[in-house]
Amino acid sequence: MTDTLPTRAPSNALAIDPDRLWASLMELARIGAYDDPATGLVGVNRQSLTDADAEGRRLLVRWMEEAGLEVTIDEMGTIFGRREGLEPDLALIMAGSHIDSVATAGAFDGCLGVLGALEVIRSLNDAGIATRRPIVIAAFTEEEGVRFGTDMLGSAVAAGRLTLEYAYDLVDDAGLRFGDELERIGFRGDRPVRLDPPHAYVECHIEQGPVLAQEGYAVGIVTGVQAISWQKVTLHGRAAHAGTTPTELRIDAGLAAAQVIVHVREMVDSGRYGRLRATVGHVTTSPGLPSVVPDRAELTVDLRNPDDGHMAAAEADLAAFLDGLPARQPGLRVETKRMAKTRQVPFDPGVQDAAAASAHDLGLPTMRLMSGAGHDAQEIAAIAPTAMIFVRGQHDGISHNPREYSTPDDCAAGIAVLGTTLLRLAEEADA
Amino acid sequence: MTDTLPTRAPSNALAIDPDRLWASLMELARIGAYDDPATGLVGVNRQSLTDADAEGRRLLVRWMEEAGLEVTIDEMGTIFGRREGLEPDLALIMAGSHIDSVATAGAFDGCLGVLGALEVIRSLNDAGIATRRPIVIAAFTEEEGVRFGTDMLGSAVAAGRLTLEYAYDLVDDAGLRFGDELERIGFRGDRPVRLDPPHAYVECHIEQGPVLAQEGYAVGIVTGVQAISWQKVTLHGRAAHAGTTPTELRIDAGLAAAQVIVHVREMVDSGRYGRLRATVGHVTTSPGLPSVVPDRAELTVDLRNPDDGHMAAAEADLAAFLDGLPARQPGLRVETKRMAKTRQVPFDPGVQDAAAASAHDLGLPTMRLMSGAGHDAQEIAAIAPTAMIFVRGQHDGISHNPREYSTPDDCAAGIAVLGTTLLRLAEEADA
Repeated sequence: MTDTLPTRAPSNALAIDPDRLWASLMELARIGAYDDPATGLVGVNRQSLTDADAEGRRLLVRWMEEAGLEVTIDEMGTIFGRREGLEPDLALIMAGSHIDSVATAGAFDGCLGVLGALEVIRSLNDAGIATRRPIVIAAFTEEEGVRFGTDMLGSAVAAGRLTLEYAYDLVDDAGLRFGDELERIGFRGDRPVRLDPPHAYVECHIEQGPVLAQEGYAVGIVTGVQAISWQKVTLHGRAAHAGTTPTELRIDAGLAAAQVIVHVREMVDSGRYGRLRATVGHVTTSPGLPSVVPDRAELTVDLRNPDDGHMAAAEADLAAFLDGLPARQPGLRVETKRMAKTRQVPFDPGVQDAAAASAHDLGLPTMRLMSGAGHDAQEIAAIAPTAMIFVRGQHDGISHNPREYSTPDDCAAGIAVLGTTLLRLAEEADA
Repeated sequence: MTDTLPTRAPSNALAIDPDRLWASLMELARIGAYDDPATGLVGVNRQSLTDADAEGRRLLVRWMEEAGLEVTIDEMGTIFGRREGLEPDLALIMAGSHIDSVATAGAFDGCLGVLGALEVIRSLNDAGIATRRPIVIAAFTEEEGVRFGTDMLGSAVAAGRLTLEYAYDLVDDAGLRFGDELERIGFRGDRPVRLDPPHAYVECHIEQGPVLAQEGYAVGIVTGVQAISWQKVTLHGRAAHAGTTPTELRIDAGLAAAQVIVHVREMVDSGRYGRLRATVGHVTTSPGLPSVVPDRAELTVDLRNPDDGHMAAAEADLAAFLDGLPARQPGLRVETKRMAKTRQVPFDPGVQDAAAASAHDLGLPTMRLMSGAGHDAQEIAAIAPTAMIFVRGQHDGISHNPREYSTPDDCAAGIAVLGTTLLRLAEEADA
């Protein structure tokens, strides 16, 4: 893959069916739908390896088969649908994302990339277009990481960063094992999980941020993914009576947790760590009673940074703050567990250019931007030339929320760029 | 009741059986016992109206009947055991406390007062002592308030502060209704819940604080209970993606909760509110996922103060801080719910003096001190002359923790004072 690619590849804009794409997105969103009290909207809760996820998977498999794809399931439950090429032995072109969701999701996160790739296949079929290279759709397992604690799990194992054993032994909050749940829903496949490097990988996804909307573009070309760090922090104090225990004798795990949360925001506001984003999403105390000083508090810290150096400095700041907590409350014990850590991932310039040229062929203006969220693409980027296409979101690009929304036109634009890019890459000769 | 009482009452020290008292405490503690991971000790979890509580209640009723007491259960499930007096029509003397526990309890909180009063009855029986007034033991329902959210619930309804309907409609975290659970465990009695004012009420309890240990007394006479305020604070923000949502667009309910926790401690450290104690024991965020900004956070704030004026000022400070939170994060919504509020309660000087004189008769030095914790005695104080006897605790008086411990000698000393005080009060004529 080189920058000369766009001139080498033919201009070949693909027409897709926006209504069919939208109908598929809405139909999948009915699986796991719930009434969300916080927003008054209907949200989606289709967490990985739940019954809802299994129902969504079965629908996807049916649609893939109806589109003539050869469906295989790998040892992680990731679903592949292959459309054969004129030269079956050439490395294939892969397009994918995920259909698992967080607990309070919308209809687009992940699903647009998978159902969009399916729409591309359906359009190729309708137009009777044969491609030189095979095209494969991938729907990766547990991208969100909300149930088993490690995000991009399926793609990370497929690309060889994590082992199958590690993934199988992860447990959810109920103590259920990933491997057992995969077996239970009937999606533990026999396809070897390690992926043969495709010729290229392209993922279309909603931006989940406000940049495209602010800049006035429906579609963006993604230059890479920022560094991500997830840690679980457990603070061990001492349970004591709220009414009688003198303040100076307390070891209050809940207070320590609050100090961490406040400090993490101060790290962001300080500006010392570039474009750092920090989130504490999960906080609990135990025993969790009004009249008992907490003996235990648990929280998660999610740090994101487009720059690995700034990320390392931010992590060092947090570590130093945690180390200093026992000095404030003698007897306090601090425990940290690394849940996830990924470096900043740059995407392949050639694939970015192929996507940009395809948007140009379609008459769509685009901009380049970096991804704030983690995506399966950053895992596949370790083994194959990879890029992403972002679609503009409404409401400041809010996501992981039932208010998540991209218009039918914007979704269609992103998938047209995806299809044209796949078509372009599928005609490439080997370098 | 007047200060002249001690001179009016006869000196009549009661001898009790320390070993029998201790054996009863240890036997009751086996019900609801669990292995506590935080301390490595065996703790007690016998929350109100659970199966464990029911088993403890049945044991207590059996012991009361074996001691010849007439047992009645009121509409709140509170257990009464009556020992008849020589003049049955005179107002009775009541001694009581509770046997329900928090989730991480020891063997003494509440149980010492109930089983101690039982030991007094057993000793009176052994010595063949008849009293002028009837003596009644009371074991009040849901004193801890950890399951249904309102502490001193049984005694508050018995004394007429709260209604039976209010209590019955309280629900626990699982949505189970107090009235239904009372029915389920078979302790919804038919004795009218409103208590006829006794001649006097005396409660022996562990101090749950470090004062007696620091001052070197086994037993203390309690002058009153400090003011207590419980609130539940719910913060409504907006769920958003941790990696992509710009910090300035976030409405982070978890951050707001942390700011409240830190501020509450600053209120204590400021010294502006006298001997204020403040505890945030319960904190949760939802959806509680590492990669989602919390749209909701819930916390409890427990404030205690021996001075009503200082308490009012502290509550005003907290209210002003909560009102100011939306200014820090526009769109944040703050909701507060009053769980409990009791003013500072002074105990009856005459009953205090009767207890002090009884300790003197036993050759036990005592000091007077205020209670930091809430007790059933503060409710009964509204309808009858009341005081409490505190017993020294080990380990800085730690309580609501499996490390809670008072020595057999100290427990025996406290119950000897209780018994002698009951004997003294039971001989009193009507004023």
